[in-house]
Amino acid sequence: METAHNIRSVLQPSAVEAFYGSVRQSSQRLCESLSDADATVQSMPDASPAKWHLAHTSWFFETMVLGPHLPGYRVFDDSYNFLFNSYYETIGARHPRPKRGMITRPSLEVISAYRAHVDAGVERLLDRMPSAGVVELLELGCHHEQQHQELLLTDILHLFSQNPTQPAYKDPSPSRAEANASGQAGYKPFVGGVVEIGHDGEGFAFDCEGPRHRVFLEPFQLADRLVTNQEWLEFISDGGYLDARLWLSEGWAKTRAEGWSMPLYWEKRDDGFWTMTLRGPRMVDLAAPVVHVGYFEADAFATWAGRRLPTEAEWEHAAQGLSQEGNFADSGHLQPRPTSSSSDSLRQMFGDVWEWTRSAFSPYPRFRAVEGAVGEYNGKFMSGQFVLRGGSCVTPPSHIRPTYRNFFPPDARWQFSGVRLAEDM
Amino acid sequence: METAHNIRSVLQPSAVEAFYGSVRQSSQRLCESLSDADATVQSMPDASPAKWHLAHTSWFFETMVLGPHLPGYRVFDDSYNFLFNSYYETIGARHPRPKRGMITRPSLEVISAYRAHVDAGVERLLDRMPSAGVVELLELGCHHEQQHQELLLTDILHLFSQNPTQPAYKDPSPSRAEANASGQAGYKPFVGGVVEIGHDGEGFAFDCEGPRHRVFLEPFQLADRLVTNQEWLEFISDGGYLDARLWLSEGWAKTRAEGWSMPLYWEKRDDGFWTMTLRGPRMVDLAAPVVHVGYFEADAFATWAGRRLPTEAEWEHAAQGLSQEGNFADSGHLQPRPTSSSSDSLRQMFGDVWEWTRSAFSPYPRFRAVEGAVGEYNGKFMSGQFVLRGGSCVTPPSHIRPTYRNFFPPDARWQFSGVRLAEDM
Amino acid sequence: METAHNIRSVLQPSAVEAFYGSVRQSSQRLCESLSDADATVQSMPDASPAKWHLAHTSWFFETMVLGPHLPGYRVFDDSYNFLFNSYYETIGARHPRPKRGMITRPSLEVISAYRAHVDAGVERLLDRMPSAGVVELLELGCHHEQQHQELLLTDILHLFSQNPTQPAYKDPSPSRAEANASGQAGYKPFVGGVVEIGHDGEGFAFDCEGPRHRVFLEPFQLADRLVTNQEWLEFISDGGYLDARLWLSEGWAKTRAEGWSMPLYWEKRDDGFWTMTLRGPRMVDLAAPVVHVGYFEADAFATWAGRRLPTEAEWEHAAQGLSQEGNFADSGHLQPRPTSSSSDSLRQMFGDVWEWTRSAFSPYPRFRAVEGAVGEYNGKFMSGQFVLRGGSCVTPPSHIRPTYRNFFPPDARWQFSGVRLAEDM
Amino acid sequence: METAHNIRSVLQPSAVEAFYGSVRQSSQRLCESLSDADATVQSMPDASPAKWHLAHTSWFFETMVLGPHLPGYRVFDDSYNFLFNSYYETIGARHPRPKRGMITRPSLEVISAYRAHVDAGVERLLDRMPSAGVVELLELGCHHEQQHQELLLTDILHLFSQNPTQPAYKDPSPSRAEANASGQAGYKPFVGGVVEIGHDGEGFAFDCEGPRHRVFLEPFQLADRLVTNQEWLEFISDGGYLDARLWLSEGWAKTRAEGWSMPLYWEKRDDGFWTMTLRGPRMVDLAAPVVHVGYFEADAFATWAGRRLPTEAEWEHAAQGLSQEGNFADSGHLQPRPTSSSSDSLRQMFGDVWEWTRSAFSPYPRFRAVEGAVGEYNGKFMSGQFVLRGGSCVTPPSHIRPTYRNFFPPDARWQFSGVRLAEDM
Repeated sequence: METAHNIRSVLQPSAVEAFYGSVRQSSQRLCESLSDADATVQSMPDASPAKWHLAHTSWFFETMVLGPHLPGYRVFDDSYNFLFNSYYETIGARHPRPKRGMITRPSLEVISAYRAHVDAGVERLLDRMPSAGVVELLELGCHHEQQHQELLLTDILHLFSQNPTQPAYKDPSPSRAEANASGQAGYKPFVGGVVEIGHDGEGFAFDCEGPRHRVFLEPFQLADRLVTNQEWLEFISDGGYLDARLWLSEGWAKTRAEGWSMPLYWEKRDDGFWTMTLRGPRMVDLAAPVVHVGYFEADAFATWAGRRLPTEAEWEHAAQGLSQEGNFADSGHLQPRPTSSSSDSLRQMFGDVWEWTRSAFSPYPRFRAVEGAVGEYNGKFMSGQFVLRGGSCVTPPSHIRPTYRNFFPPDARWQFSGVRLAEDM
Repeated sequence: METAHNIRSVLQPSAVEAFYGSVRQSSQRLCESLSDADATVQSMPDASPAKWHLAHTSWFFETMVLGPHLPGYRVFDDSYNFLFNSYYETIGARHPRPKRGMITRPSLEVISAYRAHVDAGVERLLDRMPSAGVVELLELGCHHEQQHQELLLTDILHLFSQNPTQPAYKDPSPSRAEANASGQAGYKPFVGGVVEIGHDGEGFAFDCEGPRHRVFLEPFQLADRLVTNQEWLEFISDGGYLDARLWLSEGWAKTRAEGWSMPLYWEKRDDGFWTMTLRGPRMVDLAAPVVHVGYFEADAFATWAGRRLPTEAEWEHAAQGLSQEGNFADSGHLQPRPTSSSSDSLRQMFGDVWEWTRSAFSPYPRFRAVEGAVGEYNGKFMSGQFVLRGGSCVTPPSHIRPTYRNFFPPDARWQFSGVRLAEDM
Repeated sequence: METAHNIRSVLQPSAVEAFYGSVRQSSQRLCESLSDADATVQSMPDASPAKWHLAHTSWFFETMVLGPHLPGYRVFDDSYNFLFNSYYETIGARHPRPKRGMITRPSLEVISAYRAHVDAGVERLLDRMPSAGVVELLELGCHHEQQHQELLLTDILHLFSQNPTQPAYKDPSPSRAEANASGQAGYKPFVGGVVEIGHDGEGFAFDCEGPRHRVFLEPFQLADRLVTNQEWLEFISDGGYLDARLWLSEGWAKTRAEGWSMPLYWEKRDDGFWTMTLRGPRMVDLAAPVVHVGYFEADAFATWAGRRLPTEAEWEHAAQGLSQEGNFADSGHLQPRPTSSSSDSLRQMFGDVWEWTRSAFSPYPRFRAVEGAVGEYNGKFMSGQFVLRGGSCVTPPSHIRPTYRNFFPPDARWQFSGVRLAEDM
Repeated sequence: METAHNIRSVLQPSAVEAFYGSVRQSSQRLCESLSDADATVQSMPDASPAKWHLAHTSWFFETMVLGPHLPGYRVFDDSYNFLFNSYYETIGARHPRPKRGMITRPSLEVISAYRAHVDAGVERLLDRMPSAGVVELLELGCHHEQQHQELLLTDILHLFSQNPTQPAYKDPSPSRAEANASGQAGYKPFVGGVVEIGHDGEGFAFDCEGPRHRVFLEPFQLADRLVTNQEWLEFISDGGYLDARLWLSEGWAKTRAEGWSMPLYWEKRDDGFWTMTLRGPRMVDLAAPVVHVGYFEADAFATWAGRRLPTEAEWEHAAQGLSQEGNFADSGHLQPRPTSSSSDSLRQMFGDVWEWTRSAFSPYPRFRAVEGAVGEYNGKFMSGQFVLRGGSCVTPPSHIRPTYRNFFPPDARWQFSGVRLAEDM
């Protein structure tokens, strides 16, 4: 997901201060184990260096909040407006995205100083009793930074996967003994009809999550857990990657051109399938949800399974009222956890893997982008992308909510994305 | 639109015979003014040679109908199954699409003989009292061929536009005196609510047009005519092609990379804008609907105009009950006609230009592709495409209906595609 | 070889008239068996349509000779200067090379009329007792057209090879029974020293063939015949295409990227190797010289054989004094003929296949390009090309001479190019 | 120049020990001012990270010398044979060149430890009285590392030029006041005839520099100094980059596609032309030799000037007997120095800029590559490259000699390459 923004907020200044502090610290902590070089290299045009994420999120506060709203604020370095603007056309020229990895200087250390400089500015700003509008912008900046925290992890994993020595970002943990997923998934039915989805304006949300509105749903049912690696192996064994009839035309062309035959990061060794993770290479855990598959693969899998992917409206409708609690006991795990034994409700809806939906990312009725630079803007990406729901094991827990619309192109595989099946009733 | 099929039919054998005869003759007539070379060259990978269209539509009848259902049918030439298969993976290997223009032999004359051979086969088949299933397949083949008739014209226009001598496909007609479009478009309101769209199974439709189902619409209004060339000129003059804020991110990247600054086929000369048409180069008619714009441009225009594109459900709901009559008095015109003076109803809904909607092409609830080769299949193209509605001046009139879902990628510009605006109420 | 020109001539007007007539007729005859479509399609950017060759060579006479030198000459069609200019930057804008295949009109018939119009102009010009300079230009135009005659055949073969039906340009002749090449090649020694090469100015030559000059050669020996298909098969069997050590670095990258495993146009069938020829597909004749190999392959073969390719100076020195006679008894063969039994001299030096030399195409000492448009110009291609010598079975016999320097990039394989080995002494 | 090797050596073990020590230290010193990130990033596929250069040169000693010749030598890290092999196909699989910048780990510090480990091994080896063959390999390794020292600097300059903040590798020095080059270049004549060039086997040389052999030269003269920036500005002002007639065909296509209008690293500012250097951005010094121009530009310039580039034989013949002394007083300058006032001899032949010759890189008569891995091998690059002579201001002085044949493709511009003119007499 290209990072994007909204400005509906309900936080008090003191709450924002706490949120700000925790988010900013969190970003720094994510980079503790990275060297200057780790934080500098860009492994593909879609990914950004960790250092860039650290700087860009600070630039956002500097440019959108401190510059306009803190009298006397001194910009840390004039060149950063060029270096660390992501895609805000209204703010001026910027360093080309595919060249973000050329910025060996400023160093990671200098960027830390930049962050401290911005933090000091925000502290001064908060001391001055900022207006509600400014508080909203600060909150927006925090959510924006949370988005980049997840991207930072997905991008580091991609970088390390390109290194033949396969370094671990966090302490490697021993590969688990193989275990089978616990039986077939159950399906939970929904009667459909006219239902409401979308954010209702209470609490923070990005602009594209609203307005809340009615949609008509046919009856459907939703799998009560995610598709597992074991199920994915059956798809592979059954020739799923070689059968054109299962694939979208564009997906088939892509899989042929790229030679896909398993999820991204998987590798076949003598003793079975391994995968690269943030804790280094590990054996594929058969009971865990499949991750790092793109939309094309997810859709082909669903066709093979005689099912389909849910729409985002179905997913959101089903997620309403579900507790997110308990999902994040182990948020430092950095890998989706094995599917637990069956229960009578939907499991793994939040914080395991992003779940591909069959919905193209498009505007809700009456959606209007916010005016000005902060309104650049989810709407700008409303072509060629599919919506994912639910959040992943590398999404900051406080960043997850039922209305959240993540989106990526159908061939994107480096996110923590997986599959939940649905079917008509 | 990649051509695609369904098999719901209600025609009697005799009606199919008449339909078949008229469609087949029509294809031949479209090629009367083409030389062997005109009919052979492929001007870009997205386009196909006229000869290929003529042969492929015949191959469809031979492979799907005559081979399985006419005892003793002798295949015209064994190599044609390789040469003229389009994308049916289940039927076997095929000549690569970007190389369709290499087939200088068989000649246009031999392909005409092929067509006659197939026609004779179909005649024999019809004499044998075919089953309803076979009649359905024949009808499907006719609709399939009608799709290719339109493509044949769009592809010939593209080919001729690549020739610096700008040949005319049909007698050139003199450029009209410039005229202004008659005032502002009016907007017709709709109250929305739960409405039904999709094909109800009466008469022929492609599989993706159904099933008929309910959707919820917010109140909206729809422009009572198409956007004109004059309005498009205002967009150009106002810097529409140069203002990143108006464009989808992907569209902006594309327009920069390709250097778009006006609709495809337009050319600025000393005396104003000209455009390449099937009747050769002509001055742009300001009162006529703009044509040969892609989705990215259509969307940017709508943003510039402070409006938006309709969804396909809105369009279809508005189109229900409208008469298509009168749209085709001048079906040999081969160019969209000037916008007539205002009335109190929606004008130009059918047979002028294909109208871009903001809806990504995706499956209707409970949609299932047909089994087997003929079910390859609209569903296969359900990523990266937007729906267009209404039919154009080069669509065979009997091929147009309110539920028809055409689709193309958002950067496609060589179709007869234009814009109708909508807005929220 | 990009076609190129010089203006040293010794012909009398009457001799030029005869030469002109024979060359022009010859071009027409080459196209007798081609349809309008065959003559129109461009099979790759490096190749040109037959129609384009016919028109371009006429354009050359029109633009370089008739326009400036025949008072009252009426240009046949103003658009042709744009359409049929090849690369003469000084003459103005031109149709882009990769789009030469878009020109379905003018038709082949119209181009024939164009040729007649130009021929009539040249006839009138010759009646007026043209100056020596004009006669020289006419002679140049004839040699230029001869170059295009060969290209026309190489390009038609490429086009037909892209057609799965593999049409024959000329009557197919039955595949010969396989035969072995007659034993090992012999090697003829040369003592070297200071020798002279290059054209001496007597008779016609292109500018890059001169000036005649001295070079120093070490002692060397040259194979008395060309490398045969049978020898090439041994190279294949021995893993020649799979052994990086045999290849130039650039060649190895290319062969991996393109998947080369045999000469262009070869195909492995159940009953052995076949190859596409101007007479349609035929079994590879083991006794015939290998053809359609590029420089990279030729060089790898020589390394594998423990030999090397000759330099162009060695080749020309060895060729001096050899009779070209007898080479062209069968000039309609359109395929290199089997290697005859051994003799005590060099065989197959002229008119079989172009022989790759290890010499990059570069200027001879004191070389100066001719001024003006006709001097655009061999010199322009003096980077990235290797010299080939000797002429091929599709080179017009009167176009072959010992000083002739053909040149192509090292990955070019669609010419009638083969290999003769050399070694140090 | 792809680095390459030979094994003719005359050094005694003690001399090799000193040479080894000085070369190894020198490499380390070159990296003193680089951060881990600076040393890790790859700015384009043609360039390599500094860390890679440091590791690869050590890998060479480990693989070619220590492994086979030091009993009990323990390889530092098994993965390095994959990571730091450059192109030795005979040694096995290797990390793809365009991905050299992904190796954020091992860190620069670990690579320093690797270097120390290898140095310790070489010390032990030298204590054991190695054979002459081993001494030769060590000497080869030192020359190999010197080649990489130059590449390290050219690659760092390229990397820093991609950074909008334009960091300086070494202390920036103030831009000089502009000065004019001192008048016209003089030309020194040579009578030519049969002359000898190539390395005679005394002292070290790479394989492609020999064998020494005779060539025939026509009389010629050579400019007594390099082309200056001032002269290059005249070429620019005169439209040199816009006149197709001056350019090789391939060069013209490239300059249009890439938009070249001045040497690489030049930038036009309000106060004149600036250029990026190892000491940061500086005003272009008009009296200094032009640098960072490719062959295509060099050749176009020579044509514009009515002259030509020298052949490598001419250059080497002229350089014989010239003293290299005095060229390196200021070897830390890292920029070519202004052209000194005229004298009666050739100036700036060594150690200023690499001088493009018009000679394609090809084998000398009787050249044979060394057997085995160390013989991979200059010969491997003998297509598509032009020879440069003389060494540059970033070439280690002891690495320069009159017979040295550097080579790069004609569009390479990031080397310290410039122009000396020649002409026929």
